[in-house]
Amino acid sequence: MSRTILLLPGDGIGPEIVAEAEKILHKVNETFSLDLHFESALVGGAAIDETDTPLPDETLDKARKADAILLGAVGGPKWDKRPMASRPEKGLLGLRSNLELFANLRPAILYPQLASASSLKPEVVSGLDIMIVRELTGGIYFGQPRGVRELENGERQGYNTYAYTESEIRRIGRVAFEAAQQRGKKLCSVDKANVLEVTVLWREIMEDLRREYPDVELSHMYVDNAAMQLVRAPKQFDVIVTGNMFGDILSDEAAMLTGSIGMLPSASLNSEKQGMYEPCHGSAPDIAGQGIANPLATILSVAMMLRYSLGEDKAAGAIEAAVSKVLDQGLRTADIMSAEGRKVSTREMGDAVLAAL
Amino acid sequence: MSRTILLLPGDGIGPEIVAEAEKILHKVNETFSLDLHFESALVGGAAIDETDTPLPDETLDKARKADAILLGAVGGPKWDKRPMASRPEKGLLGLRSNLELFANLRPAILYPQLASASSLKPEVVSGLDIMIVRELTGGIYFGQPRGVRELENGERQGYNTYAYTESEIRRIGRVAFEAAQQRGKKLCSVDKANVLEVTVLWREIMEDLRREYPDVELSHMYVDNAAMQLVRAPKQFDVIVTGNMFGDILSDEAAMLTGSIGMLPSASLNSEKQGMYEPCHGSAPDIAGQGIANPLATILSVAMMLRYSLGEDKAAGAIEAAVSKVLDQGLRTADIMSAEGRKVSTREMGDAVLAAL
Ligand SMILES: CC(C)[C@H](C(=O)O)[C@@H](O)C(=O)O
Ligand SMILES: CC(C)[C@H](C(=O)O)[C@@H](O)C(=O)O
Repeated sequence: MSRTILLLPGDGIGPEIVAEAEKILHKVNETFSLDLHFESALVGGAAIDETDTPLPDETLDKARKADAILLGAVGGPKWDKRPMASRPEKGLLGLRSNLELFANLRPAILYPQLASASSLKPEVVSGLDIMIVRELTGGIYFGQPRGVRELENGERQGYNTYAYTESEIRRIGRVAFEAAQQRGKKLCSVDKANVLEVTVLWREIMEDLRREYPDVELSHMYVDNAAMQLVRAPKQFDVIVTGNMFGDILSDEAAMLTGSIGMLPSASLNSEKQGMYEPCHGSAPDIAGQGIANPLATILSVAMMLRYSLGEDKAAGAIEAAVSKVLDQGLRTADIMSAEGRKVSTREMGDAVLAAL
Repeated sequence: MSRTILLLPGDGIGPEIVAEAEKILHKVNETFSLDLHFESALVGGAAIDETDTPLPDETLDKARKADAILLGAVGGPKWDKRPMASRPEKGLLGLRSNLELFANLRPAILYPQLASASSLKPEVVSGLDIMIVRELTGGIYFGQPRGVRELENGERQGYNTYAYTESEIRRIGRVAFEAAQQRGKKLCSVDKANVLEVTVLWREIMEDLRREYPDVELSHMYVDNAAMQLVRAPKQFDVIVTGNMFGDILSDEAAMLTGSIGMLPSASLNSEKQGMYEPCHGSAPDIAGQGIANPLATILSVAMMLRYSLGEDKAAGAIEAAVSKVLDQGLRTADIMSAEGRKVSTREMGDAVLAAL
């Protein structure tokens, strides 16, 4: 069964890290006879520069047809002064919403080989393994009405709308309960139900779902407390489920607990398991083009793609094992470099994973 | 000049910690001849139990007349099932909005005596001293419209509105720039201007203000990145200014970096410098009534009150010095207890500060 993978290198370090991930994809395609076919397209700032829009129709067409998408990263200072509607980020947000990629899975895992990279004490984070399930196509990111209006007194007011329907909450809730069933069977739903009506409904629907998943232990936490608890005792969490905005904040906080955001992949799935895969980190314009970015988050995103969208668990496992092996060998890009490590470039890291495969 | 202080013990550990702070207030009142007069009133769950409303008119009246307010904490599981409009939190939110206490100052300071309490590595947090300036009477906390509506297809949708006017942004911006002038002269404004229109306006107004405060170095950061940077390298920050919701999350995260949230005070001020002072921590219903809560955050809130609302810097400094002294003596409530400390109760801690004054 032939399947199509769309590569979207994007901006900043995107092209460099996607190039390494591509080598890995070609390799597993061969070794495991996956019959994968590759396309590529423009998105974000790269698309703006060529076509004046962050998400060209051609890109969206190819994305719809692909079985899975690998994205590098979008954005950078070059496009930061553009109006909101035509910024690189709109390319990313447009893909998410047009493909209905509502379920964003963001693991925060501490690799034992990199334990010392964390700014937290080893005993607080060793063995950390959290899965954050973030709703990705609703909430305040897409809520209407939005904009800037002039009030009667002549001053301007900016406004956005934070909204969720029952069905939006229910479908992300199911993804999270199912993820918890596959893991430690603990789910923490994060909201601000003591202040925001929209999250009162969120909490109610999560409570409703509890009955369908009696083997999962559901708890609720206010978002301010969750931000604290992630710092205080992150290992208390197994799976966290939350809305788009809180998920944006908490998943980045959780990722940073590991000290190696250059290691963390992510998946964004729709209800047909079609998915977009990307590293948790951004486009890092400050180090773009220098060949020093860490390609491992993107390579591990390929592993997630194989597992979640293509059902190729074996190939996924092989990639994860290869990554672990190069870490054992002491190879380190600059971002995860430590006293005992051997510093390598983006390409050397990619080649090492390839060799370990 | 006679001044009135309103005491609002509230719920959970509130009454215990406010009782200790009250002793301190009486003492400095005498020693420094401050001519302070005291009133007390009900708020939150305590008010609900007596009067069926979280913010009785009598309380609001007294609050309006007071020069400053000392609040313990509100909320607890007993009232968690009540509808949003009649929960303890509405008492707190009602005070904030009726008195227009728009400027919430939340220091996150690591006390050298308690350095080991942090879950972060000592080198990452030693000497930490951040001031978070959170807008407190606008944004999504108070935005209209809000609620739960039925859509045409029969399902419910919860919704809230995140809005800020230019003048709301400008007045909190000024407070933050001025705080930065008094401190390290660095201000970081946190927004999500790559996604939310309301924060595009926020960023624009902060940029505008830059010209009035040429001695302050202004930077901007997206909220997801700020949540990461607080974990990675918190000492890069001096003053952070942000909206109500982001401020709720980031100030709790920052507080927890110190490992001793039982130590952190806060101030909420209006444009007449009338203020409400409260510990950063909550009502901790799980330990209420046991006499083991840490009263120091509340005692340090008294110091903030003396400094910001009453202009009594000397008395404020005396309290801060006394707190530092009891920490030097090794006295510790359970929450900050360590191997070398001597464990004391809420009352013993209050008495020790009193003795040190
Ligand atoms: C680039 C930005 C629009 C995006 C988001 O806020 O969702 C990013 O921060 C992320 O988390 O993927
Ligand atoms: C109790 C709650 C309404 C409140 C808030 O969200 O503002 C609290 O978390 C705080 O930060 O003071």
